[in-house]
Amino acid sequence: MSFNLATMLRESRQARPDKPMCHFADTSFSYAQVDEISGRVANGLRALGLERGDKVAVHLPNVPQFLFTYFGILKAGLTMVPLNPLLRAPEIAYHLDDSDAKLLVTFESFADEALRGARQVAGVTTYVVTSPSGAGLPAGTVHYDELCSGEDTGEIEPTDADDTAALLYTSGTTGRPKGAELTHFQLYMNCTVAGELFGFREDDVAVAVLPLFHVFGLSSVLNACVRYGGTMALVPRFEQESVLDAVERHGCTVFSGVPTMYVALLSADTSGRDLRSLRVGVSGGAAIPGEVIRAFEERFPGVVVLEGYGLSETASTTTFNTSAEARKVLSIGRPIWGVQVRVVDENDEELPPGPDHVGEIVVRGHNVMKGYYKRPEATAEAFRNGWFHTGDLAYADEDGYLFVVDRKKDLIIRGGYNVYPREVEEVLFTHPAVAEAAVVGRPHERLGEDVLAYVALKPGASATPEEIAAYCKDRVAAYKYPREVRLVDALPKGPTGKILKKALRSQS
Amino acid sequence: MSFNLATMLRESRQARPDKPMCHFADTSFSYAQVDEISGRVANGLRALGLERGDKVAVHLPNVPQFLFTYFGILKAGLTMVPLNPLLRAPEIAYHLDDSDAKLLVTFESFADEALRGARQVAGVTTYVVTSPSGAGLPAGTVHYDELCSGEDTGEIEPTDADDTAALLYTSGTTGRPKGAELTHFQLYMNCTVAGELFGFREDDVAVAVLPLFHVFGLSSVLNACVRYGGTMALVPRFEQESVLDAVERHGCTVFSGVPTMYVALLSADTSGRDLRSLRVGVSGGAAIPGEVIRAFEERFPGVVVLEGYGLSETASTTTFNTSAEARKVLSIGRPIWGVQVRVVDENDEELPPGPDHVGEIVVRGHNVMKGYYKRPEATAEAFRNGWFHTGDLAYADEDGYLFVVDRKKDLIIRGGYNVYPREVEEVLFTHPAVAEAAVVGRPHERLGEDVLAYVALKPGASATPEEIAAYCKDRVAAYKYPREVRLVDALPKGPTGKILKKALRSQS
Repeated sequence: MSFNLATMLRESRQARPDKPMCHFADTSFSYAQVDEISGRVANGLRALGLERGDKVAVHLPNVPQFLFTYFGILKAGLTMVPLNPLLRAPEIAYHLDDSDAKLLVTFESFADEALRGARQVAGVTTYVVTSPSGAGLPAGTVHYDELCSGEDTGEIEPTDADDTAALLYTSGTTGRPKGAELTHFQLYMNCTVAGELFGFREDDVAVAVLPLFHVFGLSSVLNACVRYGGTMALVPRFEQESVLDAVERHGCTVFSGVPTMYVALLSADTSGRDLRSLRVGVSGGAAIPGEVIRAFEERFPGVVVLEGYGLSETASTTTFNTSAEARKVLSIGRPIWGVQVRVVDENDEELPPGPDHVGEIVVRGHNVMKGYYKRPEATAEAFRNGWFHTGDLAYADEDGYLFVVDRKKDLIIRGGYNVYPREVEEVLFTHPAVAEAAVVGRPHERLGEDVLAYVALKPGASATPEEIAAYCKDRVAAYKYPREVRLVDALPKGPTGKILKKALRSQS
Repeated sequence: MSFNLATMLRESRQARPDKPMCHFADTSFSYAQVDEISGRVANGLRALGLERGDKVAVHLPNVPQFLFTYFGILKAGLTMVPLNPLLRAPEIAYHLDDSDAKLLVTFESFADEALRGARQVAGVTTYVVTSPSGAGLPAGTVHYDELCSGEDTGEIEPTDADDTAALLYTSGTTGRPKGAELTHFQLYMNCTVAGELFGFREDDVAVAVLPLFHVFGLSSVLNACVRYGGTMALVPRFEQESVLDAVERHGCTVFSGVPTMYVALLSADTSGRDLRSLRVGVSGGAAIPGEVIRAFEERFPGVVVLEGYGLSETASTTTFNTSAEARKVLSIGRPIWGVQVRVVDENDEELPPGPDHVGEIVVRGHNVMKGYYKRPEATAEAFRNGWFHTGDLAYADEDGYLFVVDRKKDLIIRGGYNVYPREVEEVLFTHPAVAEAAVVGRPHERLGEDVLAYVALKPGASATPEEIAAYCKDRVAAYKYPREVRLVDALPKGPTGKILKKALRSQS
C-alpha cells in the first residue's frame, strides 16, 4: 500500500508540464521545473547518505527553494521538519535535537543564527545553505546549488500512506513545542477535501503569504495548489503592498490569511489598483471578527471570506464555512468530509447544542495526526477516549455549526464567571476607532482574574481608554467588560500573524 | 490516523438522508435507512462477540442485505470476505478456513450448500441466514432479522486507514485462490479516483448487475456510488430483460459490465423501450472487442463505452480511458491518478513503447493490495522489485496508452512464435455471423501448441467452421489463424461473465 504525497506534484506535472507552479519576484517555475529540480534535490539528499524516514529540517521563508526542498524530501522518502525562520539559535537547537534531524537546510540571511543552533546538536551533520546573493558560505556548509547539481532520476520512494511526511512543531495546549506527525495520507486527504470545499480549481492563482512552514500555509495553500494544478504567488513576508502587488500582477484569485492580515489589508490604499481577480478569502488561525468580514467584502467586491478552523495536529482544516450561502458569520463552520467533531464536557460527554453548552472541541478522522513524535504520554493525554482534544472551547448550534468561544487556556474566570475574551473582542471591533484588539486576564486578589483589553487605534482615529471601556460596558454583561483598556501602537504577533496573548498576559 | 471506509456512507447520508441509495425489485432504501440498518448489523455483529479485525464471510447475491452487511462489517471494524454465491460446499469450506472467518452470512436459497461447507470448518461458529421468503431456517442458524434487531448506536469504529477492509479471493496468476488484502484507504482512493474519471455524479443511477462480491462491482459500482451520493439499481443476476427493465424503470445513467454483457445486450430486443437515460458504459474484467464498442454505441445512442483495467489485487481500477475524446479503442487507457504502471521484460526492465515490445504489466501506487493473506511467499513473488506483477501482457504506445495483448497464462506459443489469443479473437468478432469467440492453445506434438477457436454464432446467423477459419487466415499471419474452429451454443462463463478459458482448454 504505497502512497507518497509527491505523487500530487508528478500527476500535476504530467497533466500540465509547462504551467507555472509558482511565481516569485521576477521569476516563475513551471510544474515540470519544480518536479525536475525537486528530483535533483531528492537525489542530492540520498547522495548525502540520508535514508528513508530520516528527518530534514527546513529553515526557509516562502521562496522557491522551500518547494524544491519539500518535494525533494518527500520523493526521497524522508520527513520534513519545517522551522520558523525567525527562531533563535537555542530554539533551533531544541527543534533539531527533539526531531532527530540529520540535516538542516537554511537561508543565507538566517544562516548565522541557524548554524549557531545547529552546531550544538550532535546528530545534525550536514548544513545546506541557499545563497541567493551569491555571497560566500560559512565554513562546513554545502551550497544549495550543489545539493541539486545531480540528476533527476524521476524516482519517487514508495512510502507507505501512513509514513510521516512532516513533523510540525506546535506548543499544543501545554508545554514545550512538540512535533505533530502528519502522514502522506493525512496531508493528501486534507488538501483534497479542503481544496474542494473552497472550490480550488486549476485556473486559481493563490497568494502564498502564509508561512509554508506552518500547517495552514502548507496544507491549504501549497498542497491544495499542487493537488489541483493551480499556481502560487510566493510572498516571503506579509506587507500590504507586496500582497496587493502579487494579486494585481499575477491575477490572484485566492487569498488565505489570518485575521490580522485581513485587518491590515483593510487599511491599505488600493486606489488605482485592479484587484477584481480575487474571488475568495480563506481565513483561519484565529477567530475573524464578523465586522472584519463585512468590511473586507465591502472593500473588495466579489470576494467572499470563508472561515475555517484547524490545528497543526489536524493537518489542518477541520471545519469550514463552504460558501457565502452556507456560511454563518462568527462560526467556524461544520466538519469537513470524513471528520467528526464533538463538543464535550470535562468527562468527555458530548454536550447538546446551544450557546449555554460550551465545551472542548474534540476531533476524530482522517486528518488527525499519528501522535506527538517521541511523546507517548502527551499523545495519550491528547487522545484520551479515542478523540483528539484541541484545547479550544466552543458550542454547536442546531445545524451543526460550531462557534469557538475561546482557547481553553485563554479563558478568563472572573469571580467564578467565565469570560470568553473573544466575545469582548468582537464588541471592541465594532467601535469605529478600533483597528486591533485583544482581551486577556490578569491576576486579581479578590476575583481571581480581571479583564484587561489591549487596543490599537486606526490611523488618524482617536478615542480614550475610558471611552472604549464605557462602550463595552454598554454592550456586555457587567462581569465581562474590560476594567482597563490599554492603547498600544500595535499588538504583538507571532510569525503567522496570530496575536500573542501570552506576551500580553506577561505584561499585565 | 483513523479512517473507516464506512465514513463514505455516513457523509452521503448526512448530505442527503432521504435520497434512495438503492432500488431493488419493488423497494428502495434511502441513505438514512442503509446507514441505520447497517448500524444495527454492526451492533449485532459486536453482540455476537466479534472483535476488531475478525473476518466475516458474506455469501450473498446483489440484494440489499449485501449493502447492510458490508457497511455493518466496516462500521464494527471487521473485515469482509465476500464469496461467490455459486461456490459449492468444498470451495466454501476452503475459503472460510483460509480466511479464518468467524461468521458466515448466507442467503436462503444458497444456505444448504453453504452450511454444508461451513460445518466442516472449526473456526466458523455462527451462521446468519437471510430468509426473504420467510421459510424456516436450518438448525443452528441465526435469522438475519435477529442480527439487525438491536439499536443503531451511530458508532463507526475508528480503524486505521491501512487496516484490511476486505479480503477478496482471486486465483491470481497461479495456484489456489488467495485472499487479496484491500485496505480502507485503497478502497476509498480507488472509488474516488475512478469515479471522478468516468464523471460519477450525485444524480447518477448505476446499474448494479456486476456481482458485488467481485472487486469490479464492489469498487466501481457500490463504493463509487456511495462515495458520490448516487443511487444503485440492484440486479441480482444478469439477464438482458432485467438490466433493460432496471435502466428504464429507474432512469439509469451508468452501466458497468464485462464484455460478454455488452455482447448480450446487443442482441436484446429494445423496441418500445426508452433507454436514453444511459450516458456511459464502463467496461472491464476482460478486453472488449472494438467491434462491440462500435455496435453498442450505435445501438444505444448517447452512450460512450469507456474501457478500464484492473485486478482484485489493485482494488480495482488501474488504467482507464477517460472520455470519448481521450480514449483509444482497443486500449485499456492510461494509469489512473496516483498509480504507476510499467511494461517490463523478464528481468523487470522497463520496455520502450511500441507493439514490438510486449511485456508484463507491473503496478505501484495507492491501489495495490497489502498482500495475500497469510501467504508471504506468494506476496513476495508478486511484489518482486517493489512492483506488483499482474501476469498480463501488454505494450504501451507513445502516448502512454496501454494495450493488453493477453494474460500471460493465456499466451499460446506455437512452434516458437507467440500467438496472443486476443488478437485472433478481435478478428473473429469482425465476422458478421460471430456473437462470441474465444481462442485457446491445445497441445501439439510437433509445434508444442496449436491454435483452437470456440465460436458462438448470432441467433439466425450461419457460417461453417471452415468459412470462419478461412476468414481468419486471410487476416492474420499464417502461424496465428485457428487450425480448428468449434461452433458452440454459448461459451462457458464465470460468475462475473468472464469467459472461462481454463474450461475451454480442458476440452481441447
